[in-house]
Amino acid sequence: MPAADSALLVGIGDDAAVASPDRGALQVLTTDALVEGVHFDRRFSTPADIGYKALAVNVSDVASMGGRSRFALLSLMLPAETTIAEVDGLLDGLLDLAAQTRISLAGGNITRSPGPLVVDVTLVGSVRPRKVLRRSGGKAGDILYVTGHIGAAAAGLDWLRHESARTTGEHPRPSDESLAECVTRHCRPEPRARVGSILGRTKAASACMDLSDGLADAVAGLAAASGTGARIDSDLLPVHPGAREWFACRGTDPISASVSGGDDYELLFAVPSRKRSRLRGVIREARGLTFTRVGELTSGGSVDLVRNGRLEPLPSGFVHF
Amino acid sequence: MPAADSALLVGIGDDAAVASPDRGALQVLTTDALVEGVHFDRRFSTPADIGYKALAVNVSDVASMGGRSRFALLSLMLPAETTIAEVDGLLDGLLDLAAQTRISLAGGNITRSPGPLVVDVTLVGSVRPRKVLRRSGGKAGDILYVTGHIGAAAAGLDWLRHESARTTGEHPRPSDESLAECVTRHCRPEPRARVGSILGRTKAASACMDLSDGLADAVAGLAAASGTGARIDSDLLPVHPGAREWFACRGTDPISASVSGGDDYELLFAVPSRKRSRLRGVIREARGLTFTRVGELTSGGSVDLVRNGRLEPLPSGFVHF
Repeated sequence: MPAADSALLVGIGDDAAVASPDRGALQVLTTDALVEGVHFDRRFSTPADIGYKALAVNVSDVASMGGRSRFALLSLMLPAETTIAEVDGLLDGLLDLAAQTRISLAGGNITRSPGPLVVDVTLVGSVRPRKVLRRSGGKAGDILYVTGHIGAAAAGLDWLRHESARTTGEHPRPSDESLAECVTRHCRPEPRARVGSILGRTKAASACMDLSDGLADAVAGLAAASGTGARIDSDLLPVHPGAREWFACRGTDPISASVSGGDDYELLFAVPSRKRSRLRGVIREARGLTFTRVGELTSGGSVDLVRNGRLEPLPSGFVHF
Repeated sequence: MPAADSALLVGIGDDAAVASPDRGALQVLTTDALVEGVHFDRRFSTPADIGYKALAVNVSDVASMGGRSRFALLSLMLPAETTIAEVDGLLDGLLDLAAQTRISLAGGNITRSPGPLVVDVTLVGSVRPRKVLRRSGGKAGDILYVTGHIGAAAAGLDWLRHESARTTGEHPRPSDESLAECVTRHCRPEPRARVGSILGRTKAASACMDLSDGLADAVAGLAAASGTGARIDSDLLPVHPGAREWFACRGTDPISASVSGGDDYELLFAVPSRKRSRLRGVIREARGLTFTRVGELTSGGSVDLVRNGRLEPLPSGFVHF
């Protein structure tokens, strides 16, 4: 049970929740839903995975604005056959991540669903004025960085689909450690909550966006919002080792699959060259997380991938299953 | 198109919205979803009705806490066959009420739905410290009041069901004016946004709750949260004239049907007798809206209805279709 949050003055049980905002801070507001059959498959994800991920995708959005997540609202739509154990599992998974990221569940709503299971989360965060990280602050010449690895969630999902065609067991997990990391990344993505708020606070980044729909989508989105082009170098991309192996094994190009695959929930951000010393401070503070330079914003309008010395268009975004 | 909201610093289009909170105010947070087949029937409600009502039910929750609604987040789950005109209609209805109540649409999320249409709204409001209206502040002896009329939405829905069994036309409307008001109350409930914030600001009420699930549910909920019993007088109940006629016509007891029928979105509130002069000020300020004394909180544990001089248990709450 998480410790009581003194800022949550009225919690679950009244018509609405009442909370004290962080003094002098702005509100960050986001909502994102997970729908069965669109965003998850119950053969692949446990109820706890689904609850965890429904919060994680929202934490990622707040982090990419430089914000700190504070209060969550949960809206559950439950099919008639849902068991109490499944609802408990969902809540356990959500509260597990909430405890890790110091988020209080402030309220919610449960209704029955004549269709799929839907887990819709709204997250309220806070950010200091002038520390907001937008998509639109990038300039030509800014260096693009990405946290962690890419392609892992896409490889994990591909493995789960491949495996489920062979077996009837629920929630299969691979024995290979690197591939198991990929499956975990699909089922329980770790949002970059801490790094997002450090990037905002230190003002090291000029623009930021999360990789919810993959690197290609994020690069295109950040460049479009900033009014720039972008160039990504395929040799630099931090493709997850498990993803690299799995896609090669399947006869798929690991670069294309990892760039267009979604659900990574890493951060893409732009750093002006005069702020690279600030970035070194961020990297020290983020202890252990890898940061990889993947390319730069350009003055042209196009978004390109450099591969084997040749320019090709960056593969386009990601479509949920 | 509503005027730009200077407090909304980052709106739709980034990873999350960023807003300035009202200075010195607390945050009020609530979420409520409308699910097709559970909360609405597309034969009865137009897309604009559904969008309007999805916001209205949340405005009602913020109002019942004494708050002022500020920012809405919209999460839409759309079946594959949804047309652009239907989405436009939904948004028009929602933005219509948003403009009336000075709410800015700060963000949202659209996903496809393999099942029903779902319109999930989160609302962020503000309330001054020490002006929060909870359910739990009532004391034995406090007088219970209700705004407007009860039973109208239930009568409207019953008429729509009755009519749809006879005709195949969509969105039928009765020619009788009083009954037409009931149908409108089901399709487009008017939340008591202004009265809720006046009740909070003036501190005339000791406790408040909205009638989303009907008067019987609200009386039981407010009494339970306050640790009191309650007694309601059937002769005092402001049953809507259209509901009275319709239920009588159908051979249903109008009092029971109106007390247990949901979706009224009026406010139930308790007023200590020493604050009745403050209430007179509220009534003057609320120009035109009726306020009806319906009973009182009691020191017993039971929740009773007095009818023809006899006590009977208050009919129990409301179940969505």
